[in-house]
Amino acid sequence: MENPDLTEQINALAVRVQQLEDHAAIVRLISAYGPAADRSDGAAIRQLFSEDGTYELEGWSFDHQSMEQTVQTDLHARYVLAGSAHVMSLPHIRLMGDRAVAINYSQVFVSEGDHWLVDRCAANRWELVRTTDGWRISRRVNRLLNGSDASVQLLADGEG
Amino acid sequence: MENPDLTEQINALAVRVQQLEDHAAIVRLISAYGPAADRSDGAAIRQLFSEDGTYELEGWSFDHQSMEQTVQTDLHARYVLAGSAHVMSLPHIRLMGDRAVAINYSQVFVSEGDHWLVDRCAANRWELVRTTDGWRISRRVNRLLNGSDASVQLLADGEG
Amino acid sequence: MENPDLTEQINALAVRVQQLEDHAAIVRLISAYGPAADRSDGAAIRQLFSEDGTYELEGWSFDHQSMEQTVQTDLHARYVLAGSAHVMSLPHIRLMGDRAVAINYSQVFVSEGDHWLVDRCAANRWELVRTTDGWRISRRVNRLLNGSDASVQLLADGEG
Repeated sequence: MENPDLTEQINALAVRVQQLEDHAAIVRLISAYGPAADRSDGAAIRQLFSEDGTYELEGWSFDHQSMEQTVQTDLHARYVLAGSAHVMSLPHIRLMGDRAVAINYSQVFVSEGDHWLVDRCAANRWELVRTTDGWRISRRVNRLLNGSDASVQLLADGEG
Repeated sequence: MENPDLTEQINALAVRVQQLEDHAAIVRLISAYGPAADRSDGAAIRQLFSEDGTYELEGWSFDHQSMEQTVQTDLHARYVLAGSAHVMSLPHIRLMGDRAVAINYSQVFVSEGDHWLVDRCAANRWELVRTTDGWRISRRVNRLLNGSDASVQLLADGEG
Repeated sequence: MENPDLTEQINALAVRVQQLEDHAAIVRLISAYGPAADRSDGAAIRQLFSEDGTYELEGWSFDHQSMEQTVQTDLHARYVLAGSAHVMSLPHIRLMGDRAVAINYSQVFVSEGDHWLVDRCAANRWELVRTTDGWRISRRVNRLLNGSDASVQLLADGEG
């Protein structure tokens, strides 16, 4: 027994639910980065990226092979020793089927005396891809917001 | 062929999906503000607001006509020249059909030497409306959290 | 009249919608905390917790009975007098049926002169439970990110 009209309605709903789930999965990936960084869990960070994923961090560049080194730099060691929070802001997400782009900010707060300093403040562009294991980061670019054109341009890429 | 029970179930689900989409659309509006501000894109900011939308920023007031001036003040020029991040926190959203209210915080981080200072920290009330073009901001009020009653009261408006 | 196949599809969709709603409800709880704290609304904070809910704030411990005291400490009074923002970052949420765990960061920005200082920066673990009144916080643990093992370990608990 078939009911084309109801089937069509259910399918249309399923597409909308899938988009909401895609959005939630991407938020989940981005919100996982900070805790993984602050507990120096390089393996967890690697798992957020696709096999050919890259991370262009201002001053460094990492691929799937070298991704664990993101939490092995001298700067990172100083952060964690002092006490740090890698905070990812609310992402602005644009879904395009099996691809997506998200724009947000990140700050690294570092303990110093009885306060925390904002030691890094950056613009981030996240390129995301749906894989057989779910959504993964295919490319992250992070540029310090120090007045450079490059950092401002990164914020312009949210809409295509 | 009709199946009132299944149709009813589908309609009930569609209402719930619509509410989740409304929530996501509002998050999308709010998360678009910061990148638009930091790349000084006044036209993009104007598009976030409805035709009769207003923005009461502590120290200034803008309407649809003057909205692009939000990124043309001397203060804004200094921010962008130094390097800045207008960061919107997780909004607390209350949906009421075709209207909504969201409460959140905003910080402006500004580059100074090798750190970033928190140059502004404010409470925000966002009033939102569903238009034929989707959700838009009908009114945003922003008050510096400097101990004033007005700023604290703004935070009380999330529940009605 | 029955249509097992359509009913099955609708039920499967309903489960997915419920999970998205659970996620949204938890975000809503967490995003309500900051505004309630900054307007010193202890009753509102208590309502975010379940009847047996506890809050282990670095330096203090509260239960349902004493929860309103979270906004009655001397430290809190100084914050609100100066002007403060209790900002909750994007939570990383893991749903497990009627239970959930969320990991995020919190900062307390406090007005001082013409800037705001980051007076507290902490890791947070939120344990959540579905009650007959909706989702509530059953336990929140907050530890200052000052380089202590305990604060870093809190960030590791997001995945089980």
